[in-house]
Amino acid sequence: MREVAIIGVGQTPVAEHWDKSLVDLASEAIRAALNDAGLDRADALYAGNMMSGTVSRQSTPGALIAGRARLGVAESIKVDTACSSGASALRLGLSAVASGEIGVAVVAGVEKMTDAVGGEVTAALASAADADFEAAMGTSFVAINALLMRRYMEVHGWKHADFAPFSINAHANARHNPYARLRNPIDEKQHSRARMVADPINLLDVSPTGDGAAAAVIVPVERAGKYRSGGPLVTIAASAAATDSIALHDRYDTLELAAARQSAERAYAQAGLSPADVDVFELHDAFSIMAALSLEAAGFAEPGQGPRLGLDDQIGPRSKVPIATMGGLKARGHPVGATGMYQIVELYLQLTGRAGETQVPGAKIGMAQNIGGSGASVVTHILRAG
Amino acid sequence: MREVAIIGVGQTPVAEHWDKSLVDLASEAIRAALNDAGLDRADALYAGNMMSGTVSRQSTPGALIAGRARLGVAESIKVDTACSSGASALRLGLSAVASGEIGVAVVAGVEKMTDAVGGEVTAALASAADADFEAAMGTSFVAINALLMRRYMEVHGWKHADFAPFSINAHANARHNPYARLRNPIDEKQHSRARMVADPINLLDVSPTGDGAAAAVIVPVERAGKYRSGGPLVTIAASAAATDSIALHDRYDTLELAAARQSAERAYAQAGLSPADVDVFELHDAFSIMAALSLEAAGFAEPGQGPRLGLDDQIGPRSKVPIATMGGLKARGHPVGATGMYQIVELYLQLTGRAGETQVPGAKIGMAQNIGGSGASVVTHILRAG
Repeated sequence: MREVAIIGVGQTPVAEHWDKSLVDLASEAIRAALNDAGLDRADALYAGNMMSGTVSRQSTPGALIAGRARLGVAESIKVDTACSSGASALRLGLSAVASGEIGVAVVAGVEKMTDAVGGEVTAALASAADADFEAAMGTSFVAINALLMRRYMEVHGWKHADFAPFSINAHANARHNPYARLRNPIDEKQHSRARMVADPINLLDVSPTGDGAAAAVIVPVERAGKYRSGGPLVTIAASAAATDSIALHDRYDTLELAAARQSAERAYAQAGLSPADVDVFELHDAFSIMAALSLEAAGFAEPGQGPRLGLDDQIGPRSKVPIATMGGLKARGHPVGATGMYQIVELYLQLTGRAGETQVPGAKIGMAQNIGGSGASVVTHILRAG
Repeated sequence: MREVAIIGVGQTPVAEHWDKSLVDLASEAIRAALNDAGLDRADALYAGNMMSGTVSRQSTPGALIAGRARLGVAESIKVDTACSSGASALRLGLSAVASGEIGVAVVAGVEKMTDAVGGEVTAALASAADADFEAAMGTSFVAINALLMRRYMEVHGWKHADFAPFSINAHANARHNPYARLRNPIDEKQHSRARMVADPINLLDVSPTGDGAAAAVIVPVERAGKYRSGGPLVTIAASAAATDSIALHDRYDTLELAAARQSAERAYAQAGLSPADVDVFELHDAFSIMAALSLEAAGFAEPGQGPRLGLDDQIGPRSKVPIATMGGLKARGHPVGATGMYQIVELYLQLTGRAGETQVPGAKIGMAQNIGGSGASVVTHILRAG
């Protein structure tokens, strides 16, 4: 298995792009990534996307994107693991390049959500839940997370205000990210008074949807030198996926994200690292409860103790466990199928020292964890700067 | 890159399975494949599917299927390249096993179409066309193929009746396949008098939709001996994908399936074979015009001469170019995202001498070509019996 390097990244702002289609957004990010890598084309495209079939009524969008991004007859596919589609796409690209089959691959995550007609996005998001046993009962995706958060607060004795630091940190970091959707700083008072969405989750506990695309170019390490113009070499040190049941009621313990834990443990084993080695962790803070559960599943906090890291001021860019350094899902925005690749793009910027105001000093090891379906399909990547 | 073998297959009948969900069908085929391989579990699941998000309102079905099929926390993803999703899934599984990352992979194709509410399947099928430039104009998927067929007949001087042998052969073969949807033999008169769907395509030129799932278990060749209980070793000798524009009007020549040609040429090069070496060819006869175009793109006929093979009686199981040996899409049925894996299952049965009445004598080399979006996303596999 060949070692694989990332040699260029690109992204569009997360926003309401009324004038751009799914295909426009994806090709914009792909061309930016190829440009960053100093390349003009690629052998294959792996696109992560969740809603093209429903919102854009487009199956096989990979072929369409490859055409628009001028990739010629390159192979192209779309992969869907709900909100972890972006990271799943990277995993597939990695396999293809590592196996020796593909030379230069572009991996993209893309989602187009905001111009869907009323209710369509809520219905599409609910498709990340178990269609027969959760969504069919009228449970929306945020309602499922609200059930989780309520249970977590009751079992572990946390108050709603204890989750505020996750959102405050994300917004503070997004201020400096020109690609982020929400760049307004928020404080504890705003978090406590925000409009309720699904009790106990309020508007400042949830990530905003949006349109956007993010992409990276990957090649075998031995070819990376040919393309790179300097700066540290960033390699993919680990990639691990795991699944759990989609429906919460099927899980052994609803408050432990078993697939997230398994995926993180496999990734640490592959890279020969432990949580203490990670300089920056891009976690899946789709809801503030998910930030807490992800920190626990990835080994940064004991079960039930995730919020403690925020309350102890340990999650900022210059703290012990920097998370959501470019705004995270909470403030950069969560264009669902694209999010996993936004995480990778942001890690790459961190590891190459291009992260600006929220640069984590001397970051060498970055980890991203992308979660689909409230913990059903989880992918963890570890990147290493040489 | 490790060589990869198929060690077991499973399928459900293609039918209107009113009492079974997408997940039920997929897990039934997966358990049958694992059973055929003498295994109880796998490390990863690659599921090809087109319509779960629309018809079943289920994103990330991979996780759900893995749970139901008792695959534990195995990695699992869903890939969508429209009607070629099945073969795309095999390609991803192949990459993962070939790279050394995954030991035992299950690849499945699954589709659940018949219990969709009125018009939903036609709309979902239209998503295999270009949503903005074809489907938005009201062109259905069959209408796009009708435009192709009309143009082909005009340019190359064929009559509608010249396509009859494709459908007659498919139905004749399906008679002996217990998993086929349409097992009634048909003749030229029936073909000429069938109800019109989209002129010149009539009901006996089109493949029926349906519900179904097909699956295969793949492992590195060096581990195949451990599991197999005899019979020839079947390896994946080639796997190649290519893309073309989705919209017909974007193509250089609408009557040449450029991606199908490129995909076949790459596959022949990988396997070191030519069309003359292929003993059985499972082609993508979603419409009779597609049978003709596929035969040409794969090098079995000159451009414009595909129907000649049928008229010259060269496509039966004991003829020069055996196609649709178990009924093909036309008569076995075309549960879109599952079709690519039905093709692989049928090739495997042929190469292991388990194809029954329509066994191609001494078949050693089998080729399957799976086409998504009227030639947009094409995947060709060549299997070899050792």
